[in-house]
Amino acid sequence: MRPFADLSRFINPVNVAVVGASARPSSQGARLYENLVRHSQIRGKVYAVNPAYSQIGDAPCWPSIRELPDGDIDVALVIVNASRVMDALLQCVQRKIPYAIVMSSGFSEAGEAGRALEQDIARLCRETGLHVYGPNCPGFVNVRDRIGMTFSPAFRHDLNAGGIGLATQGGGLGRNLLQGLSHGQGVGLWFSAGNEVDLEIPDFIACMAQDPQIKVIGLLMEGIKDGRRLTAALDLARERGKPVVVLKIGHSEAGVRAAQSHTASIAGSAAINSAVFRQFGAIEVDDLDQLLAVTRLLAQGAPKPGSGLCIYTFSGGTAALATDIAGLANLPMAAFSAQTNAALKSLLPDFANISNPVDTTADILRDQDAANECLRVICNDPGVGAVLFPIPMDYGEVTDGIAQSIIDVSRSTATPIIPVWMSRRMGGGFQLLEQHGLQPFLSVSGAIAALSRIWPESGAPSGPAAEHDAGGAAPQAGETAGRLQLSEAQSKALLRQAGFPLPANEVAASAGQAAAAAARIGFPVVMKIVSPDIAHKTESGGVRLGIRTEDAAAEAFDGICAAVARAAPGARIEGVLVEAMLPAGGREVLVGVHRDAAFGLVLTFGLGGIFVETLRDVAHRMIPLQREDARSLLRDIRNAAILEGVRGQPSADLAALEDLILQVSAFAERHADTLLELELNPVWLGPAGQGAIALDALIVATGPLQAPAMPEKEANP
Amino acid sequence: MRPFADLSRFINPVNVAVVGASARPSSQGARLYENLVRHSQIRGKVYAVNPAYSQIGDAPCWPSIRELPDGDIDVALVIVNASRVMDALLQCVQRKIPYAIVMSSGFSEAGEAGRALEQDIARLCRETGLHVYGPNCPGFVNVRDRIGMTFSPAFRHDLNAGGIGLATQGGGLGRNLLQGLSHGQGVGLWFSAGNEVDLEIPDFIACMAQDPQIKVIGLLMEGIKDGRRLTAALDLARERGKPVVVLKIGHSEAGVRAAQSHTASIAGSAAINSAVFRQFGAIEVDDLDQLLAVTRLLAQGAPKPGSGLCIYTFSGGTAALATDIAGLANLPMAAFSAQTNAALKSLLPDFANISNPVDTTADILRDQDAANECLRVICNDPGVGAVLFPIPMDYGEVTDGIAQSIIDVSRSTATPIIPVWMSRRMGGGFQLLEQHGLQPFLSVSGAIAALSRIWPESGAPSGPAAEHDAGGAAPQAGETAGRLQLSEAQSKALLRQAGFPLPANEVAASAGQAAAAAARIGFPVVMKIVSPDIAHKTESGGVRLGIRTEDAAAEAFDGICAAVARAAPGARIEGVLVEAMLPAGGREVLVGVHRDAAFGLVLTFGLGGIFVETLRDVAHRMIPLQREDARSLLRDIRNAAILEGVRGQPSADLAALEDLILQVSAFAERHADTLLELELNPVWLGPAGQGAIALDALIVATGPLQAPAMPEKEANP
Repeated sequence: MRPFADLSRFINPVNVAVVGASARPSSQGARLYENLVRHSQIRGKVYAVNPAYSQIGDAPCWPSIRELPDGDIDVALVIVNASRVMDALLQCVQRKIPYAIVMSSGFSEAGEAGRALEQDIARLCRETGLHVYGPNCPGFVNVRDRIGMTFSPAFRHDLNAGGIGLATQGGGLGRNLLQGLSHGQGVGLWFSAGNEVDLEIPDFIACMAQDPQIKVIGLLMEGIKDGRRLTAALDLARERGKPVVVLKIGHSEAGVRAAQSHTASIAGSAAINSAVFRQFGAIEVDDLDQLLAVTRLLAQGAPKPGSGLCIYTFSGGTAALATDIAGLANLPMAAFSAQTNAALKSLLPDFANISNPVDTTADILRDQDAANECLRVICNDPGVGAVLFPIPMDYGEVTDGIAQSIIDVSRSTATPIIPVWMSRRMGGGFQLLEQHGLQPFLSVSGAIAALSRIWPESGAPSGPAAEHDAGGAAPQAGETAGRLQLSEAQSKALLRQAGFPLPANEVAASAGQAAAAAARIGFPVVMKIVSPDIAHKTESGGVRLGIRTEDAAAEAFDGICAAVARAAPGARIEGVLVEAMLPAGGREVLVGVHRDAAFGLVLTFGLGGIFVETLRDVAHRMIPLQREDARSLLRDIRNAAILEGVRGQPSADLAALEDLILQVSAFAERHADTLLELELNPVWLGPAGQGAIALDALIVATGPLQAPAMPEKEANP
Repeated sequence: MRPFADLSRFINPVNVAVVGASARPSSQGARLYENLVRHSQIRGKVYAVNPAYSQIGDAPCWPSIRELPDGDIDVALVIVNASRVMDALLQCVQRKIPYAIVMSSGFSEAGEAGRALEQDIARLCRETGLHVYGPNCPGFVNVRDRIGMTFSPAFRHDLNAGGIGLATQGGGLGRNLLQGLSHGQGVGLWFSAGNEVDLEIPDFIACMAQDPQIKVIGLLMEGIKDGRRLTAALDLARERGKPVVVLKIGHSEAGVRAAQSHTASIAGSAAINSAVFRQFGAIEVDDLDQLLAVTRLLAQGAPKPGSGLCIYTFSGGTAALATDIAGLANLPMAAFSAQTNAALKSLLPDFANISNPVDTTADILRDQDAANECLRVICNDPGVGAVLFPIPMDYGEVTDGIAQSIIDVSRSTATPIIPVWMSRRMGGGFQLLEQHGLQPFLSVSGAIAALSRIWPESGAPSGPAAEHDAGGAAPQAGETAGRLQLSEAQSKALLRQAGFPLPANEVAASAGQAAAAAARIGFPVVMKIVSPDIAHKTESGGVRLGIRTEDAAAEAFDGICAAVARAAPGARIEGVLVEAMLPAGGREVLVGVHRDAAFGLVLTFGLGGIFVETLRDVAHRMIPLQREDARSLLRDIRNAAILEGVRGQPSADLAALEDLILQVSAFAERHADTLLELELNPVWLGPAGQGAIALDALIVATGPLQAPAMPEKEANP
C-alpha cells in the first residue's frame, strides 16, 4: 500500500507560487492571487508567475517557476491551461517544490486526451515524489490559519475556525457544509482535491487524524478508488480517537455483474461500502444536513456511555411526540437523580411532568430565572448525556427568551443543549440561537436521527428477544375471570364445526386408544398433549412428530404424559391429540384475531411458526374483511416473496389462504360479542392447489362460543 | 354508531354569545371577545355575557344567557369557571342555542371532580341534543370566513385562507401548523376541541369531508376514543375524494396486556393504528414537519398516476445525492418525451446532463431566460408529475435569481416545482420563495420522504423478487475465460482438505456404486447431481433427500440422471454425490466470500436456504476477520434472534459458527490471488455443541487453487 503523504508543509506553507496569477479582474487567476495576498495570512511570500505580466498590482510577476528568486517554495498553485500544466509540474520538480495544487480543468473529466495527461502526472508523481492535489479542483482551505489556496470568492467569509476537518469529493457540495458551519463549531481544514490523481481522500483523513487541532472528520464521498488505503486511514483515525462521519453519494447498484453465488449477487456495492464504514468505525449518514448535524454534535463531544437523553419542553404534545420518535430510534432516556427530582419539584408547578420527558408547562416561561435554573439542574444531572429542547412555536418575545435561556445555560455546562425550532416562522429566537452557534435542528426527527448516530447505546431495537421474554412470563393458560381459554382440541372441534380446514384428529385417553386412532387416521401422525394448564406444548415435551407405526404411537402417548408430568407437575392432562401429519414442503403462516381497545376485532396475518417472533413480519386489517382486503393483506408483509415462490419453487396456495382469511373474518364477526383472541399458528400452506390447513388453534373468549346448528360452510354456500 | 354532528351553523355562525366576556385587558375573556368583535367578520351580533359588567367598551353586556334579547343564537362561547359551566350549558338548552364551545379548563385533565363534571355534560348532550365543543380547548378558527372563536392572540395573524382543513388534539401543536401555512397553501378550518366530551375528531373529519372548499384534511391525534366512528369518517373522506394526512402521537406499547396468543402480543396498538389508517386510505406521517409538508403538497394536487419525478439542479453532486435518495424511496423517475429532449438539447451546453436527473451545470445561471425556458419545458412534459429542484448553496444574487425563476415558471404550469433549500444560510432567495408560498424543503431527504407519501406508485421496493429474476438469468455454470467454477464435489474436496467440517460423501458413477457408497456412509443420505453444466441442481431435478435404503439409493441414481437429462439435455454428468444427511432441527445459514471492486475480498454472513433471497438478511466484513469481527457479525443481521433461540428453543452453535467464519476468512486470505467467489449455503447449524456443517459449497476462481501439502487445520493449530 502506498504510504500516506506527509502534508504538514502543504496545509501551512511559508512561501507559495501562483502559476497563472492574473491581473484580469474576476478571472480565476486574479481571484486566487487576491485570496492569497489580501485575504490569507501567508507567513512568507506569495510569488506571482505569469509570462504576460511583469507585475500585478505593486508586486513583481515572474515569467516562470524556473526564474523565481532563490529560496524554498512549499506549494505551487497552478491555474494555467491544461496543456501547460505538465511543464509547470516539471519545473516544480526541478525547483524541489514538494507540492502542487492543479486547479485547471480539462483532464479526465473532459475525455481521452485529458485522461492521458492525468496518467502522465501520476507517473511524474510516482517517479519524483512530487505530490499533486487536483487537477480540476477548487483548491484547499485552511480556515484556522487563514490560508485560502483557492479561487473561490467565498473564501473571505470562511472566518469561523474550529475543530472540524472536511474532505469532500465533487467540490460543489463542500460549500454547503462551510455555509452550515459559519457559526458555532467551525472548520479547521477543508480538502477538495477534484480528480485526485495523486493526493486523495485517504491522505487527507490520515493528515487530519494526526492533526492535534482536528476533533472530528467529515467526509463527502462520491467514489472509492482504493478501498485498502481508505480503511487504513479510517483505522488511523479510530486509533487517534477522531470520529469520522461519512456521506457516500452514488448508491446505484447497476454495476453488479452477473454472479454464480448468492453472496456476490445480494451484496450490492452500497451495502459493502456501508459494512466497511461500520467495520472501521465510521458513522454513515444519508443526507447532507445529517452530515453537518452529526459532525457538529461530535465536535461538541459524544454523550458519555451510560448516560441518557433528556427531553425538555413546555408543551405536552411536543414531549409526547419527541418521546415517540426517540423511542422508535431506541435512544436511551435519562433517569434523574433524587437530587434533580427534588430540585425540579421545588421549581416547577404541581401539574408539570418532572420525570423525563420534562414538560415544564408554559407557566415557567413567565419566570426566566426559574426557567434557567430548571434547565441548569437537568444539565448538571450526571445521568443526562444531552438535553433535547423542542420549541414547537415561534411566540415572539417568549421564544426569544427561551433562546436566551438556552444560550445562557449552555455557557455554564458541558452537557449539550440541543434546540429544535419546529416552527416555520424563524423569528428572533431562531436567529439568536443561530448567531450563538447553537444551530437549532428544524424537526424533532432530524435531531433524533442525528443523536441516534452518535449515542453509544442506541441502534437497532433489540425488540423481538426482549419482548419474547415478556411473553414467556405471561400467565399459563386456563380459565380466569371473564376469560375462557379453549384447549387446542376444543378450539379445533369448534372450528371444524364451523367448516375450517383442519387435519383429521382424535383425542386418545390411553396408549391403546392412541395406537388405534393413529391407524384410523393414517400414518405419519403427530401427537400433542391436551391440557388446560399447558400453553407452550413443545417446551413441555408435549409434542411428538413423524410417528409412523401403531407401536410408536402407543410409546409416544406414554412418553408425552411422562414428559409433561415432569415439566409441569400437577398439570391436568385430558388426553393426547393424535393428528394427521401434513407433507413437507408447506410454508408456515399465522392468521389471528385479537381485540383492540379502539378498533375492536382486528385480523393479523403473517409468517408463522418460529418466524412469528423473530421476523415479526405481520400485517393487520379491521374485521370484517372483503376479498380485496384479504388479497392486499397477503402482499402487505415484508417477505411476501416467500409466498410467491423463489428460485423455481412453486407459489403457495394463495387462493386457499385468502379463503381461510375470509373464513376467520366471518367467524370472528359472528362471535364478535364473546371472542377475545383466535389464533391459527402455524397454518400449513401448501403449493398452489393443495390448500391451507390450520395445524394448531387457540381460542380465548369471554364465555362459551355458540356453535351453529349446522356446519357453517354448508349453511352459507 | 352515533351519527356525525351537522356543523354547518357552527363553522359559520350568524349570532354568537360570549359567556365570560371581560373588560380586563389581556384576560382570556377579553381576548376572546376582542377576537370576535374586532378581528372577526361575524355576520350577525356578538353578545357579551357577564354579570360583572353592564357594558364592555361601547357595547352592552348581559348578566346571563337567559336575559339575552330575543333572536337565534348559533354558538355560545363559554369561558367561565368550571363550576359555572353546567349552568351556562343548561341556559343554552333553554335558549335553544345548538352549539357551545367550552374553553374553560378544570375538567378531566384536573382530576376526579372534573371528570364527573364532564360526565354531566356528556349526559346533557345525549339527552338534549346540545353539541359541546371542548372543554379545555383553545376554540375554533374559520380562517377563510375570518371567524375566530378563540382567545388566542395569534388569531389576528391567521390571514392566509386556503383549502386545508385541520383537526388537532392537544391544542398546542396546532399553532405550529398554522405558522407553517401562513404563506402559499392556507387553512380553511381549524378544529381543536380539547377534551372532546361530545364533538370529536370524527365529527370534524366528516364536516370537512363534506365541505366543498376543503381539499385536504390534516389530523394531529393523540388518542383514539372510538375507532369505528373514526374509520367511518375516514371512509366518508375517501368517498368524497379528500385525502387525509395523519400524525398520531403516543406510540408507547406499554399498554399491551399479557396475552395468550402471539397475535395479541405482537400487534402493538401503534401497529394497529397504522394498519387501520392504511386500510382506510389515510396517509400516516412521523413528524410535524412531514404533516405540514405532505398536507401542503396534496393541497396542490397529487401527482398524476403514471407520471414520474424530475430531479433538476445545476450541480452534479446534488443530482447524484437526490437520485440516490429518491431511488431508496422507490420514487418513479420521469422519462422525457422526444420533444423535451430536443428542447433541452438546444437550451443546455453539451456537457450538461439532459436526461433525468437534469444537471444544467452552473453555466445556465448566467442566462435567466434560458433557465426559465428550460424549467418550463420540463414542467410541460406530460410524463413529469413534479419537479424537485435542490439548491445546494446560497449564492446571493445567483440564488435570488433561481428563486425568482421558480416563482415565475410556477405561475405558468400546473406541475408542482418543489424547491429544496439545502444551505443553512437562508438568504434572499429563500425568503423570496417563502413569501411566494413556495416554502422550500430544508433537506433532500425531507422532500423525498414527503413525495413518497403522496406518489401513487411509490412504496416499499419490490426488490427481492425482481432481483431474483435477474439472478435466474445468470449464465449457467462452467468455465469461462479467467473464470473457473468448481463443481460441488470438487469444491467440497478442496474444502475438506483445508479442514472444513463437511458431511461424509462419495461420488458414485453408477447405481450400484451409489448403493454401496450409501451403505458405507450410513442412512439416511442425500444424493445430488455432479455436473459442470448445472448451477441450480434442485430446479433440474438433480437432488433427492432422505434416502433410507440401498435399493432407494440405486433407484435415486437412475432417477436423478434421467431428470437432469430431461431438464438440461446435453449437460455433462460426472456422477452423483452421495452424502450423509444431517438431523432435522438445524438452522440454515450462509457464509460466502466475493470480490468487491474497491475493498477486495469481503465476507458475507446471513440466513441461508430459501431465506437468502426472500429475507436478504445478511451482513458483511472485509477479509481478514478477527474473532471479535466474527462475533459481532453474527449479531449484525436483523434476525439474529433466530440464532439465539426463541420460545424455549436452544441457542444455535454460535461458537462453531464463529470458527467456521474464521476458517472461511483464513481460506480466502490464503487464496486471495485467485479466489473470486466462495459460498457455503446452506450451512447446517446445529444446537449448541452440535457444530456447523456446510451442506453445499461453490468455489469460483481465476484458476486452480493450490491445495496445501497437509490439512491446513493441522498445519495451523
